[in-house]
Amino acid sequence: VTVERIALRVGETESVLWLGRGLLGDAAGRLVSPSGRFLLVSSRAARSSADRLRPAFGRALILDLEIEDSEEAKTLDSVREIADRAFHAGVRRDDAFVAVGGGVVTDLVGFAAAIVLRGVTWNAVPTTVAGMADAAIGGKTGVDHSLGKNLLGAFHPPRAVVIDPSAAATLPDRDYRSGLVEAFKGVWIRDAESSARAEELLPAILTRDEEALLELVAAAARIKVDIVCSDPKERGERRLLNFGHTLGHAFEAAGSYRELRHGEAVAWGIAAALTISRDRAGLSEAHAARVREVLALLGPFPEPVRSAEILRPLLSRDKKATARGLAGVLLEKIGRARVDEDVPEAEWLAAAATASFGVSARGSSR
Amino acid sequence: VTVERIALRVGETESVLWLGRGLLGDAAGRLVSPSGRFLLVSSRAARSSADRLRPAFGRALILDLEIEDSEEAKTLDSVREIADRAFHAGVRRDDAFVAVGGGVVTDLVGFAAAIVLRGVTWNAVPTTVAGMADAAIGGKTGVDHSLGKNLLGAFHPPRAVVIDPSAAATLPDRDYRSGLVEAFKGVWIRDAESSARAEELLPAILTRDEEALLELVAAAARIKVDIVCSDPKERGERRLLNFGHTLGHAFEAAGSYRELRHGEAVAWGIAAALTISRDRAGLSEAHAARVREVLALLGPFPEPVRSAEILRPLLSRDKKATARGLAGVLLEKIGRARVDEDVPEAEWLAAAATASFGVSARGSSR
Repeated sequence: VTVERIALRVGETESVLWLGRGLLGDAAGRLVSPSGRFLLVSSRAARSSADRLRPAFGRALILDLEIEDSEEAKTLDSVREIADRAFHAGVRRDDAFVAVGGGVVTDLVGFAAAIVLRGVTWNAVPTTVAGMADAAIGGKTGVDHSLGKNLLGAFHPPRAVVIDPSAAATLPDRDYRSGLVEAFKGVWIRDAESSARAEELLPAILTRDEEALLELVAAAARIKVDIVCSDPKERGERRLLNFGHTLGHAFEAAGSYRELRHGEAVAWGIAAALTISRDRAGLSEAHAARVREVLALLGPFPEPVRSAEILRPLLSRDKKATARGLAGVLLEKIGRARVDEDVPEAEWLAAAATASFGVSARGSSR
Repeated sequence: VTVERIALRVGETESVLWLGRGLLGDAAGRLVSPSGRFLLVSSRAARSSADRLRPAFGRALILDLEIEDSEEAKTLDSVREIADRAFHAGVRRDDAFVAVGGGVVTDLVGFAAAIVLRGVTWNAVPTTVAGMADAAIGGKTGVDHSLGKNLLGAFHPPRAVVIDPSAAATLPDRDYRSGLVEAFKGVWIRDAESSARAEELLPAILTRDEEALLELVAAAARIKVDIVCSDPKERGERRLLNFGHTLGHAFEAAGSYRELRHGEAVAWGIAAALTISRDRAGLSEAHAARVREVLALLGPFPEPVRSAEILRPLLSRDKKATARGLAGVLLEKIGRARVDEDVPEAEWLAAAATASFGVSARGSSR
């Protein structure tokens, strides 16, 4: 088994990212706990992964908790429940959480670890493609609020992240494909070579080839590591990771977080951002078409709500909105993105109305 | 008006502490908000201070919220309520909270600021003696849990702390005296000269002389600043600030947080720690007597629960407990304290049983 080890420093925390097939059966030795004791929190969907991990803990396991992993469960109440169970288990400052599951689980457990006893160690074992490529890396944790996603949270990086593509084997196809959108997003904003390679690998990835999946996920994870190390608190470059997310979050909210998976909403958000990128950032139609083609192969995705009346108030709630306006991440070419500080709301809404994965969506009219 | 300005760096945050009589009427210019917009959160008890502050904000005030400041209200639900109101007011990442009140208010608002949008700026305007000398300085924020105090929280220092002794003018006498315990604690652990000076000032302080109060509070605040700058996350020296708190927290919990004020419980905790300090840290009877005499003048305090059966489980919940055992802060002499890592529980319980402010409490038996 080939194991890749990436050490990173996010803010004040030293983290290690482990990547390799079959790591799950061998993960316990890579997880970090100052006391040697662990609190395992996993989702039902990730049960088979948790089962492979559990035996290695033996008596060091002081809590073994299964939680909901739906977006509806990503609330402060769920964090409180995790904290309650940890306190009743006698958690101490030198103990460590282990989150096994998708982005909801790692966001919840990471946030609980951030505030229990004002901060204890945690580890992430992502079991979804989006978790491996994106959510579990970089230290953003948090929960949703009725007014928007991730409105409450903390920066609290995991000390270890163990990425084993076999953990994704039991994912439903829709979740698997939705997660791939985030993985492709990572390479599109920063790495032309990996983007081209991932396009080649896509047929194998779609047939669940674990080596091919690992290659894409590892490329996306390395990019995320690079970016969050240089900008842990999202003051500059880290904002590039929000490519497709400005409208993506609005699409997701417009569907009440039920109609579209996160990655599906981001796919529509990317399609819209491509239009703005052609107008404002010089993106060529050839590159836009390559991105759309990948998204078309990852789909089909359910239609989003496109109504300006519905999207406008959701856009203005964007967490990155400041007194200066709404920033947008634009693609200059495959492998290079930039942030435009003041993309007018009207342009977002127009792009939302026409977003598509058809290769010549706007071609004939221009 | 003499204004003292102390700049400090706690973790990654640059803070400024302002000290002076009458600062409240002039505070707005000293409070920090990247956007220029503020969210004011105050307690009913601090209404007169909030009233003095409010006019200066003008239209920059996007939220003006009055909250409960009892220990019972120091819960995650209160933080959620503050966050809810902030989101409905349209809080953005570059806005800032202002907390006006005692330790409960600054702990709650600081914690809300730590997790709203993963962290926004906040400012503290403490209106209690304990808040000025201790609670509002250093970045610890948090809420209580049914299993103990401050079990959920974050390190998130305020950018500005404005300390005006006149804010304490409307404090009930019991709260005023209770808060003085924390102020004396600060000088006792670190500054023999200020301790002696504070003893001289005590009669004036007890008659509410604002200059005298400011002198003690400023000495305690400077000590706290020194300590938290050298050890923001409480890995070493900062633990000295817990002098009297190991048993203090247990006394407080044993009285269900209703029978004893925090400072009163700490006074009993200090009295008990003096006994252990004489046995283990060479504290002289003369110095122990000076400390007890001050505490006697700040009292009388209600009797604590002394039962070992009740205190034992409360002690073992101490947040600073690690796999190694229960650490204790001991006084070597007035102005110098140290941490003993493993003071046996039995010694704490024995000291709790006999703690008193009588000058010769154990004298005759030794």
